[in-house]
Order: sequence, then structure tokens, then C-alpha cells
Amino acid sequence: MIKVGIVGGTGYTGIELLRLLAHHPEVQVEMITSRANKGIPVAELFTSLRGFYDLAFSEPDLNTLGLCDLVFFATPNGTAMKMVPALLEKGVKVIDLAADFRIKSQSIWEQWYGMQHACPELLETAIYGLPELNREKIKTAQLIANPGCYPTATILGLMPLIQHQLVHLDSIIADCKSGTSGAGRGASVGGLMAECGESFKAYGVAGHRHLPEIEQTLSCIADTAQKITFVPHLLPMIRGIHATLYAKSIKETDLQHCYETVYQNEPFVDVLPPNSHPETRSVRGINQCRIAIHTLENNQIVVLSVIDNLVKGAAGQAIQNMNLCCGLTETMGLEQVALMP
Amino acid sequence: MIKVGIVGGTGYTGIELLRLLAHHPEVQVEMITSRANKGIPVAELFTSLRGFYDLAFSEPDLNTLGLCDLVFFATPNGTAMKMVPALLEKGVKVIDLAADFRIKSQSIWEQWYGMQHACPELLETAIYGLPELNREKIKTAQLIANPGCYPTATILGLMPLIQHQLVHLDSIIADCKSGTSGAGRGASVGGLMAECGESFKAYGVAGHRHLPEIEQTLSCIADTAQKITFVPHLLPMIRGIHATLYAKSIKETDLQHCYETVYQNEPFVDVLPPNSHPETRSVRGINQCRIAIHTLENNQIVVLSVIDNLVKGAAGQAIQNMNLCCGLTETMGLEQVALMP
Amino acid sequence: MIKVGIVGGTGYTGIELLRLLAHHPEVQVEMITSRANKGIPVAELFTSLRGFYDLAFSEPDLNTLGLCDLVFFATPNGTAMKMVPALLEKGVKVIDLAADFRIKSQSIWEQWYGMQHACPELLETAIYGLPELNREKIKTAQLIANPGCYPTATILGLMPLIQHQLVHLDSIIADCKSGTSGAGRGASVGGLMAECGESFKAYGVAGHRHLPEIEQTLSCIADTAQKITFVPHLLPMIRGIHATLYAKSIKETDLQHCYETVYQNEPFVDVLPPNSHPETRSVRGINQCRIAIHTLENNQIVVLSVIDNLVKGAAGQAIQNMNLCCGLTETMGLEQVALMP
Amino acid sequence: MIKVGIVGGTGYTGIELLRLLAHHPEVQVEMITSRANKGIPVAELFTSLRGFYDLAFSEPDLNTLGLCDLVFFATPNGTAMKMVPALLEKGVKVIDLAADFRIKSQSIWEQWYGMQHACPELLETAIYGLPELNREKIKTAQLIANPGCYPTATILGLMPLIQHQLVHLDSIIADCKSGTSGAGRGASVGGLMAECGESFKAYGVAGHRHLPEIEQTLSCIADTAQKITFVPHLLPMIRGIHATLYAKSIKETDLQHCYETVYQNEPFVDVLPPNSHPETRSVRGINQCRIAIHTLENNQIVVLSVIDNLVKGAAGQAIQNMNLCCGLTETMGLEQVALMP
Repeated sequence: MIKVGIVGGTGYTGIELLRLLAHHPEVQVEMITSRANKGIPVAELFTSLRGFYDLAFSEPDLNTLGLCDLVFFATPNGTAMKMVPALLEKGVKVIDLAADFRIKSQSIWEQWYGMQHACPELLETAIYGLPELNREKIKTAQLIANPGCYPTATILGLMPLIQHQLVHLDSIIADCKSGTSGAGRGASVGGLMAECGESFKAYGVAGHRHLPEIEQTLSCIADTAQKITFVPHLLPMIRGIHATLYAKSIKETDLQHCYETVYQNEPFVDVLPPNSHPETRSVRGINQCRIAIHTLENNQIVVLSVIDNLVKGAAGQAIQNMNLCCGLTETMGLEQVALMP
Repeated sequence: MIKVGIVGGTGYTGIELLRLLAHHPEVQVEMITSRANKGIPVAELFTSLRGFYDLAFSEPDLNTLGLCDLVFFATPNGTAMKMVPALLEKGVKVIDLAADFRIKSQSIWEQWYGMQHACPELLETAIYGLPELNREKIKTAQLIANPGCYPTATILGLMPLIQHQLVHLDSIIADCKSGTSGAGRGASVGGLMAECGESFKAYGVAGHRHLPEIEQTLSCIADTAQKITFVPHLLPMIRGIHATLYAKSIKETDLQHCYETVYQNEPFVDVLPPNSHPETRSVRGINQCRIAIHTLENNQIVVLSVIDNLVKGAAGQAIQNMNLCCGLTETMGLEQVALMP
Repeated sequence: MIKVGIVGGTGYTGIELLRLLAHHPEVQVEMITSRANKGIPVAELFTSLRGFYDLAFSEPDLNTLGLCDLVFFATPNGTAMKMVPALLEKGVKVIDLAADFRIKSQSIWEQWYGMQHACPELLETAIYGLPELNREKIKTAQLIANPGCYPTATILGLMPLIQHQLVHLDSIIADCKSGTSGAGRGASVGGLMAECGESFKAYGVAGHRHLPEIEQTLSCIADTAQKITFVPHLLPMIRGIHATLYAKSIKETDLQHCYETVYQNEPFVDVLPPNSHPETRSVRGINQCRIAIHTLENNQIVVLSVIDNLVKGAAGQAIQNMNLCCGLTETMGLEQVALMP
Repeated sequence: MIKVGIVGGTGYTGIELLRLLAHHPEVQVEMITSRANKGIPVAELFTSLRGFYDLAFSEPDLNTLGLCDLVFFATPNGTAMKMVPALLEKGVKVIDLAADFRIKSQSIWEQWYGMQHACPELLETAIYGLPELNREKIKTAQLIANPGCYPTATILGLMPLIQHQLVHLDSIIADCKSGTSGAGRGASVGGLMAECGESFKAYGVAGHRHLPEIEQTLSCIADTAQKITFVPHLLPMIRGIHATLYAKSIKETDLQHCYETVYQNEPFVDVLPPNSHPETRSVRGINQCRIAIHTLENNQIVVLSVIDNLVKGAAGQAIQNMNLCCGLTETMGLEQVALMP
């Protein structure tokens, strides 16, 4: 049994880790931290966990966390970087669900996240935890940067096009839409149902933190600097990301075949039949990305890519990474069926 | 033109006052206060008001407010009571949309609202602003306590039964459901769409602040102390209150006829035909209470009563009260059609 | 492995059976019928099932169904009764998720369902599949009437009060609220999002088909004819039922202790700590009923009971019944964690 | 007073016409037709209209309709074209809210709408009722084709770019999102709340009927054949369209200034300040299009355009057209404030 710790257990990614790990056959959650809720049983705060966990929240403590085999950070940006070096030194594996280790360049990171990085020397060694891209590196990684939700949906949707150099790199647009759980469980006016229910809007058009992450990864795949247009929008619903991806094709290709080939052995990427329109609910609660490809006139390619932002976009992918880096079957504990309707 | 001031303009009842007053032919909104947003045009913060107001938020100031004919307090509980005595002295009329003047008994008020009352001497003179009950008193009032949203839906639904002594007083149950805007525009975890969307729950079963307000008013109508059972619930939607009211009848009566008679001249209470089920959306955005009456076996009466919590349950009723106490036509500025769908 | 057939696989309860059975270790779904979709793979119609089922819809055929060990009817009312006698004769076990066998009295059934019953002789022998009430009978049953969703939430919430004769029988009120999936997957104007979204209403106050089912079961528990007041409401959300149950207590009792004792060995009934308010989302997607008990002044008892209408209110309970009547562990395949948020 | 008739009064655009016309000072609704609901008062079917209309639905009849000054067709595609020639002959003005007269080319119309056109000779003379484009023609028109909802949001968002030849014509992408009321009030599985609530998807990527309408109008503005990429999506909410529009600029321009100049005298197009993100709720219930312009790296222009699909995208724009062609003030009856929250 792998002994796991979770730092920051009261946000949505923390709860989701608990939901998914409740039935994982090779994992024992040893501790879960929350300063504000120290001593309170997790099942008291989150009724949905009644009957599955006896655990209470504890204060984050490096000594106790150091006894774990692996620690998940489900914390706000800027928290993990303060504790990770010490944990790595103790031989603990770390998966950060926040953004502390996603960007390779310290200066870019500091520019977008507005703070000084506490351990920039780890930025280069951290592995970007997108298994479809970095599976082998993840298997031997000690520090994994779990990808953002928008980047996961966007990169998986674009990867075959870029790997096979099928599109004009300057033509890529990612028009992305996310449910409100993506903004986290912190109190905010903007997240109130009375504010974001029954309404829809774009936000961060001038620049969103997930843009450098997407561009860094696409540049790495393309092996050349890659700029894209990325416009996020807020959906009046809880879970789900839908990326509508546009690119101009260079040459005629059987894209359906291309995608099916690239993803044929991927357990968590599902290429739908031609002319499909994936619904976000078809992945609700599960670690899956479903993709459909359309080719229109004018060499216009449209790729539709959906994930559950809290699962393949966060906690599920983190567990997939854990399975890989701990030598377990990649799909272990991640075989749920989506909740529909 | 009546010169009006609004204290606390950034909550939902404040914005709603602005929406409804935008076309009121006899009102000029002179000032609207918000300490946090001083200097910012209201139409910048609330895009829906673009083109209707040039006004910017200002700091609440007794001297300027004192130049108004009437001041609305759309503030949290406990704010109005600190400024009202000074305004009354200046001859300004005051309508408080919060709870500071709703309860006659100082001790009951202080027990439920958890603070000391700043001007208990005004509790007795303040008029409870339910026009269907207190129209004549409102016409000459200087200080009006605008009723709570649950109390408005509940009292209007029960009033004919109690006025005509048709039910056993100890049999009354008010099972009430409210949209999330009733909780206000303050940042909170519980109000997040990701928390209250796609879910439903009761809250405050052990006791809710609107209970003493309902009981006080029903007791006044019944002319005897009245206790009821009141269970509020939170609906996964923005606007609307639905009160499902239960009582046991004492004698056989034509309730439909009774309700139609009681409310025949009321512009803002609409008794639906027999066997109706009013929808909250049928009053979305308007100052109206729609009521249906059902009589079942076992002398069981079921009354269904719906309002928009922000209109007949707050800002609309406040304007109705303003019209009355300023000598205007009661319905002025309140003739909108509900937004459906 | 138990060979299972599902008649009527395109409604919500049919899809939900497939979702829950996908990982059941002792069940093989052999066939699933739909006249309209004959030949179409289930995973084509319901993308969420991709990767879990190779099965295509077939026409309902008694010979093939007769090869199953157990057949679920997830059909509209009035369909199962036409096929059940022949299946029983072949030795097949049957669980009807519709209402054909829920009412013992033929005349009451025909009055409420507006048609003639095709096999009234089976009404008496069919077992009402509420395991918390009829566990032993279910174990040996060949024909099980799976309870309605409102009845499940209501009866589980009231059962301890009635078994222990703690309340005045004529004081019981069930104010129930359901998500829209309870109305099924048939095309209808009333079920459109543009009709029932952002709104709330009661319906069927004069009489709803679940009333005789509730009264029959409560009468059976009370061992005396039982009438209650039942008012259903439609929630602007998809899954979940919340029953707010009112009754007047006869004597002072420690109700919390009473409920905890009655349900102490029940795997799918969870009595919450005192002063709780269960949320419907705490049971989203799982076979669980969560209950909270409140005692107010005036001997007023308020019980809050929540289920997922498609799971404990339909498909989950059907599988629980299947487990029981097939000699499997009662909880097999039903241990999911609720999806929250 | 202008005597108005409405054919097809039970769909969402018909009800919306009634809502908006209830207070129009120069209009009298003389008749409203619905074969299925003949004789039923409109206020009985749509409770929100209680107190505003005494009218009952009648059968569509050319003689009675012929007595009106103007007839709105709020009918499914293919209905208006059968009655319009006769009405025009009687001198009645006609505004068709459906698509019968939106496309100039008979063959293109028949290809996309899948039926033969009943009066192709009128296609050329019908005026496309987008006042911001065709105001003068509308003033003297007898037959007006009211634009589709997606085209209205898209064309208003793109018009300044194309009029001033600021963008590469082959670079235009319209990623559009609509609330479910856009699909109409007909019973359908896809429109059920349990199907489209809490989910999001694209649809019709291969081709949507609003595409030829958009391309025809943009081609007309550009004075050259114009192809764009158009991807519609379905939002889990009731009202509102958000068009996210992408184009590559040819030259550097002060787009903010350009848009403000183009729309400076338009009462129903509101250009927001730089760096804005319009919310659909900011136009809920009102005849307004709000637009924000962003310029990113790589000459990428992003325009955000929102309307209420039932108002500026249907009934409101129809009334605006009516005001114009009847010689009334263009804004008459259309000055409401958006319902927010």
C-alpha cells in the first residue's frame, strides 16, 4: 500500500482526490491537512465522504508528511514551493496540482504569478505531468507538475496536429469554456450563483495564466516557439471544460485516422467517430478526454475537446501520474463511468 | 419630483432599487452610497445600468442624505439604525430594507440579531411596510420597516385564513424555498454556484430570523400570540420564493371566494383560479405575489404563494411603500411584465 | 455470473442501470431492449458508456429475455405487466422499476394509472422492494415492485416514527421536491430547460400517483389505514429528491437515538448527527438515503430525507433488490462515493 | 394606435412580443393566433401576462389578420410564406421572425431549409431587418425579414471591421454560444433540462442554417463573397447569446474608436470601454447588443458581442423594425433595464 498525504484538503481538487482515492486498491490516505479545520473529521465537513474516511484534518507538518510515500499538493499557487524541497530531500514523491512547477522559466513564472519563486532550481527538473506526452519521464519522476485544466483539454486536442505538423502554427485559436468549480472553493462575489448563474462571459482575454503553460508545451511538441490565441469563458454550471480549437491545415490529411492512431493506446483519451459533438457531461466525474475532429471549407480544422476540470483536469490526472510514478497500473482506481444525466 | 437617496448601493436590493427607479416618473435618485466604491459610476460596476444613470457612488454622509425627501437603506442589518434617528430629525422619510425596525420587541430583536439596538425607541413607531396589511399607516409614516422576503410570501399567503379565523392556529406550517439572491451579494462559500448549484437543502430549521417577524405579524392579525413552524430551503436558482403553506381548517368555507374577496382591490396580490400551481418565474422581476389555494382531505388546506424575493420581497415593495408615503399612485413605476421564460 | 436483461434501455433509469452495472462483479448484462433504437450500440446513443459496453439495443423478445436470470423493466407504466407473467413462468426473476406492481389493490391501481391491469393476480404476490422494510421477503421473491422515488425518500424518513407509534397519524405532511430527471426522458414542453430552469413550482397538489403508494406502505407499517398530505414540487436541477416531513409527536422521545437504532445496520440509510441539513448533492450518483431529525416547539417533528431519485429512488435500489434476491452481498456494486461538487 | 396581429403566439418569440408590447404606447394587439389553443385566454396559458391582456388565442384567419396594420409571424419556418402574399395584397405590413424571407437566393434557402419556397418572388423585395444596417430601407418596407439571433450578434460584432476593410476576410471565426430558449418551445428530448442542464456542447459544426444568413449579410457589407467559420454551442441557461469573434487585422487601427464611431448614434448597440467582458445577463430581457473589442498579439482581433436571443435576437428587434416602418420613434416601448441578477 502506498502511503499518501494531501496538503490542502478543503478545496475542490482536495475533495476530489479523496473521492477518487476512496476505492483505490493500493493507496492509503495517511493524512490530509487544513490549518483552518484542524481536528475536524473530513466526513463532517464533506458529508459525501461519510463512511469512507475516519481521517480528520491536521496541520501541515513536514515530519509527518515526510513519512508518506507521496504527497499531493491541492493548495493555492505559491504554497507547494515552500514545502517541496524539504519533502524531496526526505525521498517523498510530490505531485503539485497547483501551478508552482508548471513553467520552466523562472521569469515567466514570476511575471504571471506575481510572486518570487521559492525554489527556482526545481523548475527544470520537475516533470510536466501530462502522461500522453511525458509518460516515460513521469514514471521515474520525483516531482510532478500536474497540468492545468485548460491546458489539458487544449493540448490533448491539438497534440496530433502539431506533432505531425499539419497546421499553420500562427492560426491556432483555443476558445475555451469552463464550469465554475475551476475557480476553486474560495469565497468570492464572482463565483456566487447569483452572479454567474444564468449568464455567460469571457474573461482574461488580455492574458490568462494558462496561456504560457499551453504555449510552453505546444512549443516543446512543435520544437519551435509557439504562440496561440486563448480566450477562456465562464459557464453557468459546475464541472466541465469544453475547448473549441481552430487551426488552418497545411495539407489534406485524414485527421480522423491521425487522431485515432496517436491516441489508440491511450486509456484516457477517446477519439469520437466523425461528425461528433462531445458533451461535457459525457466525462462528468471521470478521468477522460473525449475529442471530435471536424474539417470545414477553407482548410479550417475544428477540434472539440472535453474533460471534467476536476478529474482529467486535476485530481484524476494527478492519480494517473501517481499510478505511473509509483509503478502501478496506470488506470487503477480511475475506471468510473460518467454520471449522466 | 421626489429626491431619493440610497444607502448601500452595491447589494442586490440596492441594484434592484436602481433598476426599478430608472423609469419612475416622479423620482430622482440624488445619491447612492458605497464606501468601498466611492467615485465609481454605478453603471461601471453594474453594466446593466449603462445609459440610465450618470450617478457615481459616494460616501454615506448625513448632511447630503438630509437633503433627500426619502432615503432607502439597502444595507446589512445593524447599519440603518445608526443613521436613521438623525435623518428623521431632519424630516427625511426612511424605508429600511433590512431588519432593523421590523421587530417591535427590543429584546426579541437583540436575541435574534445578536447585537444591541441603537435606537430602540423607534421600534414602536416604525411602521411594518406590508401595504396589504398597513396601507393607511404607511401613508403617514416617516419610518417604514420593509418586510423580509419570506415573511412577505408567507403572510400574504396566510392572511385571509387568519383574519377570518378559518384555521387552527397551532397547525400552521410554512415550508419555504428561496433562490440564492436572498442571501445577498457578499462573498461566501455557501453561495458559490459550485456549492449551491444542482443541489437543494433546508437550513436554519432550528430557527431563522424571519420566524419572529412572521409570528409577530400573524399574532397581530390574529390578535393572539401565534406560533408557526417555518422551514426555509435554498433553491438552485437566482430569484424567487415559493411558500408552501399548510393549515387545518376549522370549518368548511369557500376559500377561493374568501381569498378573492380579501385581495380584490390589491394591485400586487393575484389570486389564481382554482387548482393552480404558481411558478416563481411568473413573478420574475415584478412586484407581485401570486397565490393558489387547495383544499385536501382531512381539512388540510394548502396555500401556494410566490414572489420575486428582490421585488415584492424587497425593492419593489419598498417602492410601493415610497409611493404610499409620498402620496403617489401606489402602482407607479411598478407595472412591469414578468420575464418569462 | 448472473445474466441480466433490461427492457426499456433508453430512459434515465435504464441508462442508470447500465452505469451502475458496468462494474458489478457478478453481473453480465446480456441484452437491453429498445424498439426505436434496434441495432444501435448503447455506447453510440449514450457516449458516457463508451468503453464499457459492446451491447446494441435489441427488440424486446420473450424468448431471449427468458434466457436471463433476471430482467429489469425500466419501461413506462403499463408495459411490464404485459410481459411479466410469461417471464415468471420461465423462471426468470423480475424487478419492475415502474409502477405496475406497487399497489396491492387492483381498483386503486386502475383508478390512479388510468388503465386496466393486465395481470391483477400478481399484485398480491409481488414484493414491494424496499429492503429496509421487506428484506427477508425480497430474498425469496421472484417478482419485485421497485418503489417510487418520492415514496422511498418519504417512507425511509417516516418509518421509525410510525413503527414506534411516536406521532399522530393525521398530522403527517410530506413536502417533497424533485429534480427534473424524475419526469423521465420523454420529450415534453414542461421538462424543457427554458420552462423549468430558474423556476420552482408545486404540482399535482390535488393528487399524485405516489400518494397511494406511500399511504399503502405507511398503513402497512402502522397496521392501520394511514392518510397523509403529500405535495410534490419540481426543482430546477437534474438529480435529487428532498423530502421535508412534518409530524406532531405524541410523547417526548430521543428521536435521534431512535432513528440511529432503527437504521444502525442499514448500509444505505445514513442518519446524520443532530442539527444537520442534508444536501441532495451529498447523495448524487449513489445508493444512499441521508436523514436528519429536528424537534421544534409545539411537539413539531421535522425530518429531512434526501436521495438521488435515479439511484436509491430507482436503479440503485433495483440493484440492491437484485443482490438480495440473487443471494449476493447486498452492497455489491453500490459502493460509489457521491459526486461533489 | 397601430393595430397589430401575431401569428403563432405560443412559442417564445410570440410570448416575448406580448411581454414587450404590453406597455407600448402606440400599439394595440388585436389578435394572436394558435390553432391548438383556440379560445383559451393568453393569460391563462402564460400566467405572467395576467392583468395585461384580455385577448384569447384565435385561429389564424386571413380576413381578420387583414384588418391589422401590421402582422408579426412568430411561427416555425415555412409558415409565414404561405400567408404573407395575401396579407401584403391587403396592404398589411409583415414582419417575419422566422427565416422565410432572410435569404435572397431561392436555391440556397431551399437547400438549407429543406422545402420549396412558396413565394420566391418576395425574397428579393423583403428587407433584412437589421436596423443598424438597413434603417432607411426598413422605414419604407412592407415585408421585413427579422434577422436570426446568431446573425444579429455576429453581424453587429463584425460590421465595423468589414465596413472599414480592417481584417482579412478569410480569417473570420464566429464561436457562438446560445441559451436553450433559442431552440424554441417545442417538446424535444435535447431541450430537456436533464439533457442540457449542467453540460455544454457544440452542435451543427458541419453547417447551421444561420451560416448562409451571416455570410450573405457580410458579403453584402464587404461587397464581395464572404465565407466565415461558424460554430454554435448550447449553453446550460435560458436566455442569452455570446458571440466570440476572431479576425486577423490587416493594419493597425484604433478599433475602440472605430466601433464607437460606427455605433455612436445607435440606441441599441453599446460599445463597452476597453478591456471589457460583456456578460449575457447585462442584456437579459432588453433590446440591446453590448460589444467589447480586444486586440492581441499576432494581429489577432477578438470581439465579444452579447444579446438576449429573444429580444435583440427576435421580438425586440421585431418591435424596433415595427417602430421604424410605422413611423414611430425607434426606441418606443424598448427602454427596459436588464434584469440583473
